[in-house]
Amino acid sequence: MLSKPQISFIKSLHQKKFRKEHGLFIAEGSKTVAEFVHSGYVIDSIYYTPQAPKLLNLSQKVKVQEISPAELAKVSTLSAPQDMIALLCIPPKTQILPESFKQTFTLMLDDIQDPGNLGTIIRTADWFGFDRVICSPGTVEAYNPKVVQATMGSLARIDVMYDELVPLLRDAQIPIYGALLKGTSIYQTRFGREGIVVLGNEGNGLSDEVKKLVTHQVTIPRFGQAESLNVAVSAAIFCTKIREETEESNVREIKNGE
Amino acid sequence: MLSKPQISFIKSLHQKKFRKEHGLFIAEGSKTVAEFVHSGYVIDSIYYTPQAPKLLNLSQKVKVQEISPAELAKVSTLSAPQDMIALLCIPPKTQILPESFKQTFTLMLDDIQDPGNLGTIIRTADWFGFDRVICSPGTVEAYNPKVVQATMGSLARIDVMYDELVPLLRDAQIPIYGALLKGTSIYQTRFGREGIVVLGNEGNGLSDEVKKLVTHQVTIPRFGQAESLNVAVSAAIFCTKIREETEESNVREIKNGE
Repeated sequence: MLSKPQISFIKSLHQKKFRKEHGLFIAEGSKTVAEFVHSGYVIDSIYYTPQAPKLLNLSQKVKVQEISPAELAKVSTLSAPQDMIALLCIPPKTQILPESFKQTFTLMLDDIQDPGNLGTIIRTADWFGFDRVICSPGTVEAYNPKVVQATMGSLARIDVMYDELVPLLRDAQIPIYGALLKGTSIYQTRFGREGIVVLGNEGNGLSDEVKKLVTHQVTIPRFGQAESLNVAVSAAIFCTKIREETEESNVREIKNGE
Repeated sequence: MLSKPQISFIKSLHQKKFRKEHGLFIAEGSKTVAEFVHSGYVIDSIYYTPQAPKLLNLSQKVKVQEISPAELAKVSTLSAPQDMIALLCIPPKTQILPESFKQTFTLMLDDIQDPGNLGTIIRTADWFGFDRVICSPGTVEAYNPKVVQATMGSLARIDVMYDELVPLLRDAQIPIYGALLKGTSIYQTRFGREGIVVLGNEGNGLSDEVKKLVTHQVTIPRFGQAESLNVAVSAAIFCTKIREETEESNVREIKNGE
């Protein structure tokens, strides 16, 4: 059974302020929790209902407790609670080195506000084999329960880091692709083997300082009348085109190796 | 000032049951409402705050009333209400003719559940110049306020129709592209000039009956470890690749015409 202090502690983590204070965040559902168990994340505690499957490979340090579905409903962030809720440690901030941008592609987000958008971008980055997503300090917090939910477990695999974008972009020394309305068509863009893709805020797009550092303005051509695309959709279209080139060059390498 | 019956009438339209009963739905924000005013939709009434810009080209039949921001907050579906709320007539159901699939691309949605996903798909369809989206009867209702909001005005331009997909697909006589996990890479797929793209439910994908009618199984190649892509993201990737061919063939035609 969950004690009253336990209930109010878990519920406090619905709020950013207390997540920051305690260095913990919430993940829900046995499938998502299992992804975190098998990742580098430190698990603080797991509360599961009798319906939940047994989790494998759990460290003995993790507090584990059976609770009823009614108790889960009291502490869940979901309108339809699943079978498990886990408290996980927010990883310590690490430094982003300029060399780390070489020979890979990185997504950078400039003040994305919607948790669903950030979560979907992290999930998409994971699908397309990107290792990390770098967010401006003004971007919605990745440990917001709505973000965690929308990543569908991908947060366990993708490094989501927060830092000022401008100094990083200044030192990167690789192509910086900006999603902008008046640029080269993405259909005509060659991304090559390394680069940064910067995507802007839902309402305002890229900030002026970031825009100045973009080396390649890229546009997703419009064929109809919508004023803009959803930012998670734009991110996915960039990932698709970048990986199309990866696939083409892999095919070429295989042919050359024959 | 809004009377109590007016408030409870508008608030009743937050619910599907009453939208159906009254044949009305809600759109909010002067920008979105303006898109509907300039479309074929019949406007029932508009409530605006003193902050809202004046709407042009309004038919004299539309009831228009100034209200205070506090009154707007009482009837709004948004957590941050904007400057205007309009009640619009749900268009009558029209028949979908098999010939209408020829020489164009159509998106078909098989039981999409999330309002944000449907709204984003409608917005994306509008960006890429698709005229309509056909939804299975089990798909979330397009007049749900969350859907309307997520379309960002595109619902005013895109026909969203509900019908049984199986008979439509059976009679279509054009390529039917299904987003499936084990198909031809979308990078290797040639879409040509006409076709239907069917996208499945968030949890279960395409239903078995629809899957049987797919003539071209198409996969978005995975480079990382996510289990799946968000359905609105998948839809956008299909639209991107279809329009890449449109652009290429337009370029060819211009060259040939020289």
